Amino acid sequence: MSTDFAETDSSSSSPDGFVERQSATLFAPPSPLVLESGETLGPITVAYQTYGTLSPRKDNVIYICHALTGDAHVAGRHNEKERKPGWWNGFIGPGKAIDTNRYFVVCSNILGGCQGTTGPSSENPQTGKPYGPDFPFITIRDIVNVHNALLDHLGIENVLAVVGGSLGGMQVLEWVVNRPERVGAAIVLASGPKLNAQGIAFNAVGRRAIYSDPLFQDGWYYGEEEKPHFGLALARMVAHITYLSEQSIELKFGRKLQNGDEFGFDLKSETEFQIESYLHYQGNRFVERFDANSYLTLTRAMDYFDLGEAYGSIADAFSRVQSRFLVISYDTDWLYPTPQSKEIVRALVDAKRHVTFKELKSAYGHDAFLIDQELPKLGSLVSPFLARTYSDRQ
Amino acid sequence: MSTDFAETDSSSSSPDGFVERQSATLFAPPSPLVLESGETLGPITVAYQTYGTLSPRKDNVIYICHALTGDAHVAGRHNEKERKPGWWNGFIGPGKAIDTNRYFVVCSNILGGCQGTTGPSSENPQTGKPYGPDFPFITIRDIVNVHNALLDHLGIENVLAVVGGSLGGMQVLEWVVNRPERVGAAIVLASGPKLNAQGIAFNAVGRRAIYSDPLFQDGWYYGEEEKPHFGLALARMVAHITYLSEQSIELKFGRKLQNGDEFGFDLKSETEFQIESYLHYQGNRFVERFDANSYLTLTRAMDYFDLGEAYGSIADAFSRVQSRFLVISYDTDWLYPTPQSKEIVRALVDAKRHVTFKELKSAYGHDAFLIDQELPKLGSLVSPFLARTYSDRQ
Repeated sequence: MSTDFAETDSSSSSPDGFVERQSATLFAPPSPLVLESGETLGPITVAYQTYGTLSPRKDNVIYICHALTGDAHVAGRHNEKERKPGWWNGFIGPGKAIDTNRYFVVCSNILGGCQGTTGPSSENPQTGKPYGPDFPFITIRDIVNVHNALLDHLGIENVLAVVGGSLGGMQVLEWVVNRPERVGAAIVLASGPKLNAQGIAFNAVGRRAIYSDPLFQDGWYYGEEEKPHFGLALARMVAHITYLSEQSIELKFGRKLQNGDEFGFDLKSETEFQIESYLHYQGNRFVERFDANSYLTLTRAMDYFDLGEAYGSIADAFSRVQSRFLVISYDTDWLYPTPQSKEIVRALVDAKRHVTFKELKSAYGHDAFLIDQELPKLGSLVSPFLARTYSDRQ
Repeated sequence: MSTDFAETDSSSSSPDGFVERQSATLFAPPSPLVLESGETLGPITVAYQTYGTLSPRKDNVIYICHALTGDAHVAGRHNEKERKPGWWNGFIGPGKAIDTNRYFVVCSNILGGCQGTTGPSSENPQTGKPYGPDFPFITIRDIVNVHNALLDHLGIENVLAVVGGSLGGMQVLEWVVNRPERVGAAIVLASGPKLNAQGIAFNAVGRRAIYSDPLFQDGWYYGEEEKPHFGLALARMVAHITYLSEQSIELKFGRKLQNGDEFGFDLKSETEFQIESYLHYQGNRFVERFDANSYLTLTRAMDYFDLGEAYGSIADAFSRVQSRFLVISYDTDWLYPTPQSKEIVRALVDAKRHVTFKELKSAYGHDAFLIDQELPKLGSLVSPFLARTYSDRQ
């Protein structure tokens, strides 16, 4: 997932000040989280941020599930020096599509991540060193169990809505099936009930890039001066291509050269075309903020997710849900193409659940739900959907 | 390009015996090839194979231009022990779509390759060692100039048709524009007048994989026991995904696991899903037959190709051609999608040239022109087109 393709809204975060990094320690001994694999993990630190005010009846909570490489910093700024606001700042805030004057928004870094929530780069209490490859295998269900534990910790019983795109959408689907009593509405963007073979294939290439970097050292690279940045950057480069539509990179870059109009006839140059330069830049920026072991862990969690397999069929899974649904796909998204969203919608209809579906037109491919220019269209669906859900529950 | 997705026709090559590896040495001093970059290269050895019999009037020649990782061994077997026949054996042979009872077929390994024609792994006569990264930068035009020099060497003035898919199709386009007097008909399969940004992006990822393999050693790995096989295999894995359609890998592999029905919850396994195992297998097989420096050289030649840029516009380029055209695309090809073929066709129409266009339906994506099951459909277009061209020229 990338927010770098278009410039993010640079307006100030909110009139009521800066957003605060918060964290909670959950699953402390003797009550660790029992993972889907059967292993246990604890304690688990969860990094999260909140926006707006929890209503006295605690009925205005919206939980945001971030995508593969996102984090808890979904909107606003931590301080005035912060260059860029949170990754969905154009969508969440006072008066915005998810209006923090009305709703209390929670976003947490997911389990296995590397932005404050326990993951492979966190300290293993048994060794005093980072978990590294000893970090247990996790699934989307484990990630969602931690979201629910954070709600418990915050004293929140039910949420008005859970919202997520891509891997975040998978968390939403798992959540409403696994803890149906807790969720009023589910908003699933650019996602699917399972990853298809092509998606698994691209993830496999990314992981291979990391594994084959000699600096990866079987995952024990934390104490080293040099980290497997070549491999991780390469994984990001290939993933990044899948986040963009063919149309959008053709329009933005086409065959334009990085320097001048003449070919260099130099095989040593890796950035002769602008699209190359852009991908290298994305790869190099990514390694500054992301951990290779987290990338392995979370892409595998994505591969494993299969709602239908876990519950017999997707319709069987949905027979448990109580939420209403808003499902949105993008016509140029080829990583989670529209037929995958339609599979969700058909199963919801079969299970006689309330669902609204829309395929939005966009040039931006999978990343469209993160692109500022595309947010008004998305907001025009999400905002009234949330308002209706809220008023229907009064 | 891959011929491994479906089993290749295993019928014997031809009733009249085995095919012979041939080679010619061209551009010997003092007459080296002047490359598009301005550099010179010579002597150049060309590995080629021929099928059928050259007619007394030398008017039945069909030249096959292979794709990125193909070779001169286009059909038949070299001996009875050879496990697999040439890469287009289902298409070329006695009584087949390109009927070697009627036509004299020539296929040569392209300049910069690694299957007998001079390329980076060939001996540099100035040093007595492989060229390695000292091999000059080459373009599609240089490749086609060597094809033409081979024709001269064989004493052949004109060809009935040049045929090629993918990178081979680019050679066909360059050929008919650059040496229009020599070609009766052009058959362009699953190709385009230029590589789009997404194609350049995937090539850039493949090259990055090679460059970042420490065993690559700036291209000077030939004397070493270990070669940059991790990088080259990774480049092949990502390219291979682009050769297949989403639909075909979903049908063949979907989410099937390699061993049993149960997840292993083991992050160390890189081949838990069948699609992963398949890609790793493809990568590992590829490095047995291909050279990393050739991969860099030829993908860059592909990136550089831009027929319109070189001649003002594609229609301007085509104002020079004398051939008739058969242009074929595949509906599930997303590497060279149908609009790219249509761009060729529109320019030919604008230039008032004779063109037949067909988008074939296939599940197999870009590789469809190489897949045995798809050859009857392709043959039903190619075979009469060749026959008409031949009879019209009598």
